[in-house]
Amino acid sequence: MPFQHTAIVGLGLLGGSLALDLRAHVPEMRITGIARREATRVEAQGLAIDGRPVFTALAAELDAAREADLIVLCTPVQTIIAQLAVLATIAAPGTVITDVGSTKRTVMNAAATVLPQGTFFIGGHPMAGSEKTGLSQARRDLYRGATWALCVPPGAEEAAARLAALVTTLGARPLTLDADSHDALVALTSHLPHVLAAALANVTLGSTYDDLVLPFIAGGFRDGTRVAAGSPEMWRDILLTNRDQALRALQALQTELEGWRVAIQGGDAALLEALLTAAKVRRDHVPSPAVALASDE
Amino acid sequence: MPFQHTAIVGLGLLGGSLALDLRAHVPEMRITGIARREATRVEAQGLAIDGRPVFTALAAELDAAREADLIVLCTPVQTIIAQLAVLATIAAPGTVITDVGSTKRTVMNAAATVLPQGTFFIGGHPMAGSEKTGLSQARRDLYRGATWALCVPPGAEEAAARLAALVTTLGARPLTLDADSHDALVALTSHLPHVLAAALANVTLGSTYDDLVLPFIAGGFRDGTRVAAGSPEMWRDILLTNRDQALRALQALQTELEGWRVAIQGGDAALLEALLTAAKVRRDHVPSPAVALASDE
Repeated sequence: MPFQHTAIVGLGLLGGSLALDLRAHVPEMRITGIARREATRVEAQGLAIDGRPVFTALAAELDAAREADLIVLCTPVQTIIAQLAVLATIAAPGTVITDVGSTKRTVMNAAATVLPQGTFFIGGHPMAGSEKTGLSQARRDLYRGATWALCVPPGAEEAAARLAALVTTLGARPLTLDADSHDALVALTSHLPHVLAAALANVTLGSTYDDLVLPFIAGGFRDGTRVAAGSPEMWRDILLTNRDQALRALQALQTELEGWRVAIQGGDAALLEALLTAAKVRRDHVPSPAVALASDE
Repeated sequence: MPFQHTAIVGLGLLGGSLALDLRAHVPEMRITGIARREATRVEAQGLAIDGRPVFTALAAELDAAREADLIVLCTPVQTIIAQLAVLATIAAPGTVITDVGSTKRTVMNAAATVLPQGTFFIGGHPMAGSEKTGLSQARRDLYRGATWALCVPPGAEEAAARLAALVTTLGARPLTLDADSHDALVALTSHLPHVLAAALANVTLGSTYDDLVLPFIAGGFRDGTRVAAGSPEMWRDILLTNRDQALRALQALQTELEGWRVAIQGGDAALLEALLTAAKVRRDHVPSPAVALASDE
């Protein structure tokens, strides 16, 4: 049976975009928005699609999620974990709870520990987002074409099928995998790129050349550091809840870079060309955004 | 006196775009295009702006540059150096020679060594380009808003002023600085980003997860590795002709990354947040592409 009442907890870019998509694609859905800040609720109150309000109800407290048959936690990972403990005292039997957090093992473990029998937790992570955050950045079709990872505990298969059907309705591509694999993969495809973007911003923009640096900045640096403008708190939590895999990815990158250093220092043309060619061949195989519309993390 | 006859040597993305801009902005300019490959010359023959052919003449050999009062070398850096030796036997007194190569010390040294008295060499480097190469990618206004670095040897000031006036006509922003500073700056703003993009592509796409990696790729990785699709030969030459500064930039990055590794391994939330915040503050200060239209490299 499709979900009839979704409570979205956290109305930022991801929660807000989800609400817009639900109202657009499942017009009869009851949608309760939960946001602690009053300014956010006021902004959410004004959201409409084709003249119809996006939210059926808005509230400040998690208690408002009590009657929902689907609760989606769209808050930072550490907040998700805290909110799961509160939901454990609220959610009715049969409720499906999911999240959009960027790491999955910590969240899955917390859910397994605190949630009562009879509720179903599916870990979720849509590969969509932006370095721009907040409800004002929310938009329809943010999830179109994006992989939506689902981590399904034993016994939650039917709930996961219902959730997969819903995200498919929004144009996303559900992909079920275990939390270990998820966290290892996003360490490579999302967390490592973020660390590199931030480290590059720090080295280049923090150099002693000061004002002379900006005129020499072009597309490669601009694109390579774009995500470094993202929320420091969110990324701190992501790295801390995926420490071992982020570390493993970073160490692999450090080893790779040491190979480049040796090649440059030694003036080894053949090795440099081999490294550059391997990268080009690999990068040329990545489908263009026209095919995979997903934006960032 | 403005230049009346420009010879463009090498009709790829940069040379082709320069020709289009010259024809558009300086309609009376004689433009001789020099390209070794016949297919390129045939393609160049077909280029027109407002019904007028872009090239006045096309040729395979450098000798065709003999009558130009401005010769622009738009070939890879190592080729530029070889071509300077040939031009030394061809260029008439008073001829101004420049280039668009990505590193400047090696080129300036070669020019100072081989060119005869009476010719003027100005090192040039427009901060524009793309990972997509070749004449088919050439476009008008590629240089609009881009910094165009000029390295001016003693005695070439008047020639440099004429060249600066010309690139200003194309919408670029001439910036005169010494070759040492140029090479140090582009190591940080262009060469280091390229090495990181390529290293990231190698680590993430070369991981053992194979087919599972692609569904998890989103905007951060895509943008962070875009330039890795560039020409391996061109980037090999860039790194080899700027070895010491590329090495210095890479080592600074390695030191920075080691700080991140320690912070992640130790679960140091405060240090991680400080590193992420520093990067965000710095990245937020970079003007958006709407302001600085320059593309890559």
